[in-house]
Amino acid sequence: MSSYPKPINQLIESLSYLPGIGPKTAERLAFYIITMSGNKVDHLITALQNAKNKVFNCSVCNNLTDRDPCLICQDERRESGLICVVQDPKDVIAIEKVRDFQGRYHVLQGVISPMEGIGPDDLNMKELLERINSENIKEILIATDPTVEGEATAMYLTKLVKPMGVKVTRLAYGLPMGGDLEYADEMTLQQAFEGRKEM
Amino acid sequence: MSSYPKPINQLIESLSYLPGIGPKTAERLAFYIITMSGNKVDHLITALQNAKNKVFNCSVCNNLTDRDPCLICQDERRESGLICVVQDPKDVIAIEKVRDFQGRYHVLQGVISPMEGIGPDDLNMKELLERINSENIKEILIATDPTVEGEATAMYLTKLVKPMGVKVTRLAYGLPMGGDLEYADEMTLQQAFEGRKEM
Repeated sequence: MSSYPKPINQLIESLSYLPGIGPKTAERLAFYIITMSGNKVDHLITALQNAKNKVFNCSVCNNLTDRDPCLICQDERRESGLICVVQDPKDVIAIEKVRDFQGRYHVLQGVISPMEGIGPDDLNMKELLERINSENIKEILIATDPTVEGEATAMYLTKLVKPMGVKVTRLAYGLPMGGDLEYADEMTLQQAFEGRKEM
Repeated sequence: MSSYPKPINQLIESLSYLPGIGPKTAERLAFYIITMSGNKVDHLITALQNAKNKVFNCSVCNNLTDRDPCLICQDERRESGLICVVQDPKDVIAIEKVRDFQGRYHVLQGVISPMEGIGPDDLNMKELLERINSENIKEILIATDPTVEGEATAMYLTKLVKPMGVKVTRLAYGLPMGGDLEYADEMTLQQAFEGRKEM
C-alpha cells in the first residue's frame, strides 16, 4: 500500500475509517473514485459537506432534521397527545414506513447501558419529561429495542413517567410475522405465550 | 427513505454510486458520517479532493502518480532496459510488493476486448513502441492478466514488438488461469517472475 501516490493512500486511509470498509474495499473504492467523473466526485463532496453542516437534531423531538422543528413535529395533522419513544433516528424511519402511527416521536439517542457507561442523564429523558409537562401528553408508547438495554430503559422510563399520570405502553412482543414457529428463540416464544389474545 | 431530511437522502444517493455499496450500506455509512467528528469528515473531503485533483497518469509509463515522471520512472537504480507491461496501475503495486522486479513499467490501461469495443488503439501501445525506440529497451516482459483478453493482448504485443529486435517474455504460468493479477499471492507472483519464458 505504501507504494501508492500519497493522495491515494490518504483517500484509502480516510475511507477505511468508515464502518464495514476494510483496507481492500477502501482500495477498490479509492481507485473507483479516481476514475469517476469530476462531476460525480463533486456531488459526493457536496453531499458530505451538507450532511455534516445542514443536518442537526430537532429541538423538540431530537430526530435528525434539516429544519427546526422537524417536519413531523411541525405536522398539525399528527395526534398531539401521543409520543412514541425510540432509541435512534433510524427507528423513526422504520415506524414511519408502516404509516400506522399517527402521534409524534421522541428520540433518546441511545439506551441505558452500564457496560458502555451510558446512564439516564446521557439520554434525552429530561427533555421528554418537559414535553409531558408542556404538551398535554396522554400516552407514552415506548419502542426501544427488545434487548436487555432496551428493556432496562423502558422500565426506567415507565417508573419515571407513570407517576405523572400518563398512560405508558410498550410495543407488543411475539412471533414475527412471516416467520416459522420452530425457529423462534425461546424468549420470543415465551413472550408470545404470555401475550396470547382471545380470538 | 424519502422521509429522511434532504441532505441525508442526497448523501445516501451519492454513496450508492460507489461499487459494492447498496442502498442499505449507503444508509448505514451516511448515518455514521453524520455522527463522525467534523474533523474526520473534513479529512475525508480533503482526501477526495486531493485524490481527484492531484493524481494523474505518469507521462512516461502511464502509472497513477502525483508527480511527473512517477517515482519508479525517476528511480535511477532501476534497470533501464527492461519494461514490464501491465493492464492496470494496481498491478504495478502488486508486483512492487514482491520486490523481485527491478525494471520499469508500462501501464496499458486495459486490454484488447472486442466485446467491450476496446481495440489496440484505445490502449497505450503507441507510447510503448516510442519508448522502445527512445529508451534502448532490451526486454519487454508482458504481465497482462492470465485471461482470454490478457492473452490476446500479449499475443498482439509480441507480434508488434518482436520485429523491433526486442526480447519479449511473458509471466510464467504459475498464475491460476481466469484469475486477476492483483489478487495473486506473493509466492505465486514470484514464481511467475522467475519462470518467465521467451515468446
